[in-house]
Amino acid sequence: MKKTKFDVVVIGGGIIGCSIAYYLAKEKIDVAVLESRQIGSRATSAAAGMLGAHSETDNDHEIFYPFARSSQLEYPRLQEEIKELSGIDIEMQQGGIFKLVYSESEKNQLKSALSLPTVEWYEAEEVRKQEATVSPDIIGAAYIRDDVHVLPASVCRGFSKSAQTLGATILEYTHVLDIQKKDSTYVTKTTSGNLESQLVVVANGVWSSSFFTQLGLQHQLVPVKGECLSVYDERITLKHTLFHDHCYIVTRNDGRLVIGATMVEDDWSENPTLAGIESLIAKAKTMLPAVTGMKVESFWAGLRPQTLDQNPFIGHHPDQEGILFATGHFRNGILLAPATGQMIRDLILKKEVKKEWVEAFKVDRGMHALV
Amino acid sequence: MKKTKFDVVVIGGGIIGCSIAYYLAKEKIDVAVLESRQIGSRATSAAAGMLGAHSETDNDHEIFYPFARSSQLEYPRLQEEIKELSGIDIEMQQGGIFKLVYSESEKNQLKSALSLPTVEWYEAEEVRKQEATVSPDIIGAAYIRDDVHVLPASVCRGFSKSAQTLGATILEYTHVLDIQKKDSTYVTKTTSGNLESQLVVVANGVWSSSFFTQLGLQHQLVPVKGECLSVYDERITLKHTLFHDHCYIVTRNDGRLVIGATMVEDDWSENPTLAGIESLIAKAKTMLPAVTGMKVESFWAGLRPQTLDQNPFIGHHPDQEGILFATGHFRNGILLAPATGQMIRDLILKKEVKKEWVEAFKVDRGMHALV
Amino acid sequence: MKKTKFDVVVIGGGIIGCSIAYYLAKEKIDVAVLESRQIGSRATSAAAGMLGAHSETDNDHEIFYPFARSSQLEYPRLQEEIKELSGIDIEMQQGGIFKLVYSESEKNQLKSALSLPTVEWYEAEEVRKQEATVSPDIIGAAYIRDDVHVLPASVCRGFSKSAQTLGATILEYTHVLDIQKKDSTYVTKTTSGNLESQLVVVANGVWSSSFFTQLGLQHQLVPVKGECLSVYDERITLKHTLFHDHCYIVTRNDGRLVIGATMVEDDWSENPTLAGIESLIAKAKTMLPAVTGMKVESFWAGLRPQTLDQNPFIGHHPDQEGILFATGHFRNGILLAPATGQMIRDLILKKEVKKEWVEAFKVDRGMHALV
Amino acid sequence: MKKTKFDVVVIGGGIIGCSIAYYLAKEKIDVAVLESRQIGSRATSAAAGMLGAHSETDNDHEIFYPFARSSQLEYPRLQEEIKELSGIDIEMQQGGIFKLVYSESEKNQLKSALSLPTVEWYEAEEVRKQEATVSPDIIGAAYIRDDVHVLPASVCRGFSKSAQTLGATILEYTHVLDIQKKDSTYVTKTTSGNLESQLVVVANGVWSSSFFTQLGLQHQLVPVKGECLSVYDERITLKHTLFHDHCYIVTRNDGRLVIGATMVEDDWSENPTLAGIESLIAKAKTMLPAVTGMKVESFWAGLRPQTLDQNPFIGHHPDQEGILFATGHFRNGILLAPATGQMIRDLILKKEVKKEWVEAFKVDRGMHALV
Repeated sequence: MKKTKFDVVVIGGGIIGCSIAYYLAKEKIDVAVLESRQIGSRATSAAAGMLGAHSETDNDHEIFYPFARSSQLEYPRLQEEIKELSGIDIEMQQGGIFKLVYSESEKNQLKSALSLPTVEWYEAEEVRKQEATVSPDIIGAAYIRDDVHVLPASVCRGFSKSAQTLGATILEYTHVLDIQKKDSTYVTKTTSGNLESQLVVVANGVWSSSFFTQLGLQHQLVPVKGECLSVYDERITLKHTLFHDHCYIVTRNDGRLVIGATMVEDDWSENPTLAGIESLIAKAKTMLPAVTGMKVESFWAGLRPQTLDQNPFIGHHPDQEGILFATGHFRNGILLAPATGQMIRDLILKKEVKKEWVEAFKVDRGMHALV
Repeated sequence: MKKTKFDVVVIGGGIIGCSIAYYLAKEKIDVAVLESRQIGSRATSAAAGMLGAHSETDNDHEIFYPFARSSQLEYPRLQEEIKELSGIDIEMQQGGIFKLVYSESEKNQLKSALSLPTVEWYEAEEVRKQEATVSPDIIGAAYIRDDVHVLPASVCRGFSKSAQTLGATILEYTHVLDIQKKDSTYVTKTTSGNLESQLVVVANGVWSSSFFTQLGLQHQLVPVKGECLSVYDERITLKHTLFHDHCYIVTRNDGRLVIGATMVEDDWSENPTLAGIESLIAKAKTMLPAVTGMKVESFWAGLRPQTLDQNPFIGHHPDQEGILFATGHFRNGILLAPATGQMIRDLILKKEVKKEWVEAFKVDRGMHALV
Repeated sequence: MKKTKFDVVVIGGGIIGCSIAYYLAKEKIDVAVLESRQIGSRATSAAAGMLGAHSETDNDHEIFYPFARSSQLEYPRLQEEIKELSGIDIEMQQGGIFKLVYSESEKNQLKSALSLPTVEWYEAEEVRKQEATVSPDIIGAAYIRDDVHVLPASVCRGFSKSAQTLGATILEYTHVLDIQKKDSTYVTKTTSGNLESQLVVVANGVWSSSFFTQLGLQHQLVPVKGECLSVYDERITLKHTLFHDHCYIVTRNDGRLVIGATMVEDDWSENPTLAGIESLIAKAKTMLPAVTGMKVESFWAGLRPQTLDQNPFIGHHPDQEGILFATGHFRNGILLAPATGQMIRDLILKKEVKKEWVEAFKVDRGMHALV
Repeated sequence: MKKTKFDVVVIGGGIIGCSIAYYLAKEKIDVAVLESRQIGSRATSAAAGMLGAHSETDNDHEIFYPFARSSQLEYPRLQEEIKELSGIDIEMQQGGIFKLVYSESEKNQLKSALSLPTVEWYEAEEVRKQEATVSPDIIGAAYIRDDVHVLPASVCRGFSKSAQTLGATILEYTHVLDIQKKDSTYVTKTTSGNLESQLVVVANGVWSSSFFTQLGLQHQLVPVKGECLSVYDERITLKHTLFHDHCYIVTRNDGRLVIGATMVEDDWSENPTLAGIESLIAKAKTMLPAVTGMKVESFWAGLRPQTLDQNPFIGHHPDQEGILFATGHFRNGILLAPATGQMIRDLILKKEVKKEWVEAFKVDRGMHALV
């Protein structure tokens, strides 16, 4: 007989939803994850998996950086525990990142990053000693040893399988038809039947929009499509991630390079266009000229959920205590998944959560309305 | 500036939705089709494309057969018009179908079909003269020249592009968030913005379930997953479709054979399992023993929308004149698409529609409740 | 028991080898085709399938054009016969080609082509009436109604299956180890055993090089890699092929567009590089600006066999009457396959063959040695 | 200017050829690898990667086992060095293997294996404690902790890239046309030009057959096609490899299961047939009944090079000191690659090699002629 009552129902089986399930299951909270397709098959699989706590921090060193950094620092422990619980290797790859710099003005913009103890400045020759094929046009690079990367689909499957080992229920191919409140209980109507729970967490990325609407909230998430390519060549080896102007070249375990990602606002399609491919090639060439000789292996796209201030929504529905949101992670879903899972766990367990994070990520924070 | 007002909004860009758009656009009705992924990318693409007006008719010669037959007879005209309007070839393939018979009792079951003037009985040797590699275990076959087949994705794209040529609007990657009534107008809230229309047609297959719920109706569609394989071999040629026990082997333009399809009730996943593949191979072997030596090319699955009495829903919402349904076509979406498009057109234009069809397909017909 | 004696052994199961087998089998000549992979799986499958008798003729109106034109004129008959014999539809697509012209000097280069009765000049507006999305920068186009296109893999499979129906033997996955002469018989040693025949035809494209070497000839074929892309978009329809500067945009039956092809000399790899993809996108944009918004579907590459004077080798080994060659078709293997099959048939049957073709295509014609 | 002189030319860029290049390059021997497609793209990529020193040893504990075991024991060191030199992770996965036993007679056959200190007997309940979903029909299993597995394509790319770092030259897409002797030098004629070397090592698996013929040797390798499937399911986790009757179920880093492999003798095709798929499913079900509910991800096939006595050929050409062979590794190419590379290195450097290995693997050992 199928189980129909849970403490918590999580809508969305991407890396955010699965992280939440994992952290809740570790606390013996009875959780079910509802995913309309396969676990981790959409934005999660499309991501390159950079844990760019430093490289993705532009100016916000007060809120974003400490939250991102705490999430990044959780990964080494996760790697071991997930391997132990599920047999899955999240393929965390050392090497770090070179944030390439082509001019003094670009270097100036990195000033505050370079003041961090975890960020080092490399002159061009030093960069080339590490990566001989890097562009001759750089004047140097910020080197960040800690901004390593992982294989996102494996992190997500690792969370999901570990959560199951710890008692969680995962329901794939399950479409949510409606969320209804009955006394103090939520009934989530789905194509796999009705599920009852005290709490519902909405965590399905840009597709969370329909639940904002349905649950009486104005906010909308805007998709920002990211297109990627992977390439391979027997003769070219890259040991560090290269990064410039929101574009990166990341190596995989097997020597493939992943080049990503474009930023196409308000496009709901999950297929790359020729324009996207063209701009990726142009950007990759400026970092690694030899890339043009590499063989194309595949291409894909995913939708990042963007909020108006580009910070995620993590917190309670302003009027309904039993509904929580964990979405809007924009470019940083992989990086922020552990900290998001922990924060939702703490909110549910009423443990202490840093006030500035609660404020910054709350659903009803002051943002100018979306046009 | 994007257009936001239409006469009719059709939800679902599969073969049913696109057929409706095509027949409406031919009447200069201003129609928009909303599709959450790509046109024709789900159940439509998964179908083999058999126009089995006779072979899919079990006993219902009063309702199903005349409706199906009228739809089948529309295809030759469509082939030409779609080619003309859109440049797309729907790859209608002559040859007809052999409904294989292995025993006298199976032959008896075909009695009423065999009484039709369009169905002929072939003895085993005669079948083998046409298809030398057919199973030696058959005692004969019903041969139906008119049950030819088409390439479903091309029919759907053909409808869609022809409809556009005639003025229709196609919005892909558009998720419907909500349908609201404002006076005599419906506002369909979508990720591509709000669309206003006098009429809304729900035509998105098994996923229509959420709109039944949302529009206050009890009915649910049950998915019946169909798994398929394609195979190829340079040395094996088949010129007719083979059919037995709900399984068929269909040839494609390029000589590939498509083997399908399983029937897995209440399974929402769109991926084949090993059990499905295994049963397809077993069934194909009973029809064409040499198939075991053929090379596998690909496999896939799709979800057929099943109603309780296995007839489609084609008609008005019982309480809201402005909402129509066109879904629940089960195994016969490709076959019935033209007749469905025409019937919706006629209901909208208030032209005459055969009474027995209106009765048989109406949404609030008496059916025992789904458990 | 496997058959080991044949009249003719053809090495190479691409479109050239299969065409030869088809025309020989029609004359009741007992022929076997040896293919190391699958029939038509390499250069043949990679081709776009343009029958560009006019558009591929640069200046050579004496030799190339009449040969190409006779081949092109054979296709309509082939289409019917192949359908009849094998059930395969070669998907010949009407519409013809617009050879786009951007300047007066380009127009001048087309002078001799424009003097042909089968070539018409269209002013820019006239072109746009036919194809609304064509580049605004053209000054006009040469329109060639007869330069239609086919689906190359289907033509090849059609030749192969028709040949089998007529008695030919096709051996896939068969590697040739050696060709030895024993009295008046050739023994072709293969991984499928030894085959004896009076005649051997070498017809495996650029890989024929190894047989030139082995059979004591100096000539080498140089591969010219061609990279291609296919794209799709629901809203864009193209009814004619567009062509400029050796690049074309061809429509498929199902509405996809194929963009090809680059020319990378002396590259034996069969995978596209980023540089190739980049140049295809750039060229496609100059013809059809809207192409940048289209979704990428797939990409591939194939190797064209180039000779020094860019005419094929069709004829006898200069010293061994029993060996023939049919290779080196460069950009025009699909177009020239019928005429090549017919010419080899006529050489074997000692029927009359136009002298100028024998001279132009003979293996030991005077060409400056390859460096 | 391209380099054309080397100490050693290795024909074949699979795992054997790349291992040889790696061990030679470590000794500063100037080596080039010639590969007709992409590095590791054929039999290597098709393999599951089991290092079955124990599980693949049937009775031959004198020759095969010590050779295989020494190769297995080299892997942990390789893992580190390859990561260091090339950045590639060979994904060695701990867990070991359960060789399942269904009857006392099967258990008897494992007697000598079970006497090894590295092999343990587990009763059925103990196996089920480790793997809850294993077949209820087993009576127990031999557990072999050391028979772990790796990702073959990554090992091969790791060898190749590490060898390049150490100075080796890798030429992909290079077809060998002929090997000629000129004084004490071999000239290997290829599509990338002529290469001179003192030594040539033939290491291209079953395709080495053509060189045996060409170099005056009778031996032929027989292909034994192995077909494989990969499957996934969110709810099923396997931490150990399962093995029975030459079939295995192996887990990948990301949780996918690989099921392999059939044994189809003398079949040169590299595509799975329906019969192969059917037999894999049947075998997998006997080990892991729940496998039937798993989703199919992909399928493929590769050709194992089989010799008459199923031991590899590793050694000098009997008459030409400058030619060596390293091929015929049958089911165990991945396992034996390190030991083969080391043995070829030692033969070339005239270091000591175990006499019994030299005898057992020499090319002209007494074997009954192949029919």
